[in-house]
Amino acid sequence: MSKNLTTRAEDYSKWYNELVVKADLAENSGVRGCMVIKPYGYAIWEKMQAELDRMFKETGHSNAYFPLFVPKSMFEAEEKNAEGFAKECAIVTHYRLKNDPDKPGKLMVDPNAKLEEELIVRPTSEAIIWSTYKGWVQSYRDLPLLINQWANVVRWEMRTRLFLRTAEFLWQEGHTAHATKAEAIEESEKMMNVYSDFVQDFMAIPVVKGLKTETERFAGAEETYCIEALMQDGKALQAGTSHFLGQNFAKAFDVKFANQEGKQEHVWGTSWGVSTRLMGALVMTHSDDNGLVLPPNLAPIQVVIVPIFKTEEEFEKISLVVNELVSQFKKLRISVKFDNRTTQKPGFKFAEWELKGVPVRIAVGPKDLENGTFEVARRDTLSKEVVSKDGIVSYINDLLETIQTDLFQKALYYRKEHITEVNSFEEFKDVLENKGGFISAHWDGTPETEEKIKDLTKATIRCIPLDRKEEAGKCVFSGLESAGRVLFAKAY
Amino acid sequence: MSKNLTTRAEDYSKWYNELVVKADLAENSGVRGCMVIKPYGYAIWEKMQAELDRMFKETGHSNAYFPLFVPKSMFEAEEKNAEGFAKECAIVTHYRLKNDPDKPGKLMVDPNAKLEEELIVRPTSEAIIWSTYKGWVQSYRDLPLLINQWANVVRWEMRTRLFLRTAEFLWQEGHTAHATKAEAIEESEKMMNVYSDFVQDFMAIPVVKGLKTETERFAGAEETYCIEALMQDGKALQAGTSHFLGQNFAKAFDVKFANQEGKQEHVWGTSWGVSTRLMGALVMTHSDDNGLVLPPNLAPIQVVIVPIFKTEEEFEKISLVVNELVSQFKKLRISVKFDNRTTQKPGFKFAEWELKGVPVRIAVGPKDLENGTFEVARRDTLSKEVVSKDGIVSYINDLLETIQTDLFQKALYYRKEHITEVNSFEEFKDVLENKGGFISAHWDGTPETEEKIKDLTKATIRCIPLDRKEEAGKCVFSGLESAGRVLFAKAY
Repeated sequence: MSKNLTTRAEDYSKWYNELVVKADLAENSGVRGCMVIKPYGYAIWEKMQAELDRMFKETGHSNAYFPLFVPKSMFEAEEKNAEGFAKECAIVTHYRLKNDPDKPGKLMVDPNAKLEEELIVRPTSEAIIWSTYKGWVQSYRDLPLLINQWANVVRWEMRTRLFLRTAEFLWQEGHTAHATKAEAIEESEKMMNVYSDFVQDFMAIPVVKGLKTETERFAGAEETYCIEALMQDGKALQAGTSHFLGQNFAKAFDVKFANQEGKQEHVWGTSWGVSTRLMGALVMTHSDDNGLVLPPNLAPIQVVIVPIFKTEEEFEKISLVVNELVSQFKKLRISVKFDNRTTQKPGFKFAEWELKGVPVRIAVGPKDLENGTFEVARRDTLSKEVVSKDGIVSYINDLLETIQTDLFQKALYYRKEHITEVNSFEEFKDVLENKGGFISAHWDGTPETEEKIKDLTKATIRCIPLDRKEEAGKCVFSGLESAGRVLFAKAY
Repeated sequence: MSKNLTTRAEDYSKWYNELVVKADLAENSGVRGCMVIKPYGYAIWEKMQAELDRMFKETGHSNAYFPLFVPKSMFEAEEKNAEGFAKECAIVTHYRLKNDPDKPGKLMVDPNAKLEEELIVRPTSEAIIWSTYKGWVQSYRDLPLLINQWANVVRWEMRTRLFLRTAEFLWQEGHTAHATKAEAIEESEKMMNVYSDFVQDFMAIPVVKGLKTETERFAGAEETYCIEALMQDGKALQAGTSHFLGQNFAKAFDVKFANQEGKQEHVWGTSWGVSTRLMGALVMTHSDDNGLVLPPNLAPIQVVIVPIFKTEEEFEKISLVVNELVSQFKKLRISVKFDNRTTQKPGFKFAEWELKGVPVRIAVGPKDLENGTFEVARRDTLSKEVVSKDGIVSYINDLLETIQTDLFQKALYYRKEHITEVNSFEEFKDVLENKGGFISAHWDGTPETEEKIKDLTKATIRCIPLDRKEEAGKCVFSGLESAGRVLFAKAY
């Protein structure tokens, strides 16, 4: 199979677009800005979902489901939130089509079927969920409410890219309600940590935990926690956010509870989400010019076995050995595929599985049968080794763990190499242009400076790292006092 | 806790509506016709999803995801399908809100943000999926395509009822493409059988497998297979459908493949789905005047343990024993809850778990500790037994299996009692009015007769059972020739 993949050095953006399509992850649909997630891509997303869902339940959350639509009056109740999403939302205005009298066989919107109140297709569900919580919360005994939803949401983005920015995307959104401010803040931080553990341990992507500035904060939140990752082209990608909502939504939707003294108080809220955007981060962190590189934890196929044969007889002998091996892998819950297609040559198969990022490839030919060996190839390093039949299963099992760790270490090394401290705006621009990555710089804390830097350089403040040193300094742009460094970057 | 549940005899419909809300399964939302699926209800749906998903994968299907929206021109491509759904669909016409100049703080649809082409919120996804399949199928090697999607869909129903008929609902929809007619028919039948196995073995609901008449067929299908269940009020409920689509969608969307001889042919299609409607069937098949009755396979909590105590000391002693028991249950993957709330009395707890349909309740008091016993109560029969501590775990494990089987047998017995053969229209009306259930009667095979019977009695043909005897007879209404009996019923 011919890959014809643009290289990252040639055009990183093009490389990404091509890879997502050629590796069968997703494609553009006939609906503007909406993607089709193909079976191979969806299988990866399912693995993410399963692990996240497990983590949410382990931390006490339950799943539920809330309506797709938000009536306009409900949508506008929390003003900042509404303002933040009003400019890019899909609006349902009618509920019936009828035959077009002028065009036989065609349909038209029936003007007599206009909704009394327009419905917004949820861009996020705070409004609909908090309007429901009002009925669920009476007393402190009803709190905390710890609920998550797996759903599709729609944001009418003008410039879309597969996984990274699509009009419709899939995500989970947690929405919790608490009796105290401290509890709600604790929850926001806990979920940021759940995300960070998931992205680092499961996706092998290192992240920086931090707080968003006011400008970059979620519309309607008091504080937004985030995890920020760094892609191979030196651009940052926001991988997950967790919001402390204060009492904003509780006040907008009048959600009160009787505390232990019987006094009415507004509850405190959080919301947090990750989306199919993570698929984009996965591709852009690990993959190379030959195609996808998948961490074993997320690979739908962890091991592929390719037989090398000329005759029917050789094929049968190899199949016998391979089938035995396959059943041993399955016992260890290693996901394995025996590529026994007779319509394709080994070279074609090698290229195809390389493109699709299968972590380990095993090849077996007549020579191997004689010697009692297998040829084992790693997708991440493209290295090959001849491994004895004895102990091959535990060898592969260990190798999958090694690959998972190595991918993280490699990405971490890249990330470390690409956090640069700068102390002047000249340096800032120079690093941004010639090296990329995160720029650690002093900032005077004003939205005005943030805005100016963005206008001049396209770099935004990705986060105020939670682990930053307290270090007095001068703002890299204005020269004014600063309490510590923040991370700037160009971002997806 | 006071249940105040209307009884089934008083008002079956009211009993259902109240039960769904009081047992915390679902509630109406602030959006017309859309429901909120609450955590307890969603946990049951998740168990259904997990089992169905396993069965789909075992039969070779993969999951994928297609857009929520269908452009109008794509929607109308398969005319019959479009016609079938045009009258009840939500239509997106605009993509932006703006501040309303006349009403400070309010938003309005921005008239400058009108879409060039209206988007239909999917009522079903044949159109968007077949428009995608066009790009996926070139040769016979690309077939069969065996794909499933878990998604939300919207049908603008005017009269809605929780789970049974809602404007938005959750479902799965399988969409497959095949090289031959025979293969596609085999697939439709296979999936009907998967549904039947699931509903019978997992939900403990007996079903009749059959074919829909032309009138009741899915819009755009050549043949619709269905499974029909019978509710306790004698009304039928369609629990799942599997459609043989012929080449209708392939022709509408020009999906062709090169066969082994290199000749272009249109592919053959199927689609099949079950939805959150199954939740309604679950409630209406097994539950009683005390509340839900859940089959152990679907119960989020299979066993609840309620401590009976007066003093702190008694509570502690009981807790010790119960905690040990809980960990034993967990080893067997029995889902158990120790209801150790000190804010509620045992009677309240009993009523609550009865309402929520937990299959087995264990009560433990100081007397039990002395005697080394537990009091075990079955939710389905409301019977109690004192069981010795030794072997309690395997006793409960067996009991859960027994309950699962008994629920199915009970429902099957009811169903058998409520299939009545009739040979005259007088008898037909009499049985329908006074007994309900399925009426097995001869029909002349014409839509006209079907329509007249419906107008006169509200009964429709639920299906032509697959296992019906070949038996010549006279139509119960027209007196014309009939090749065999079909099942009529009033239906949800």
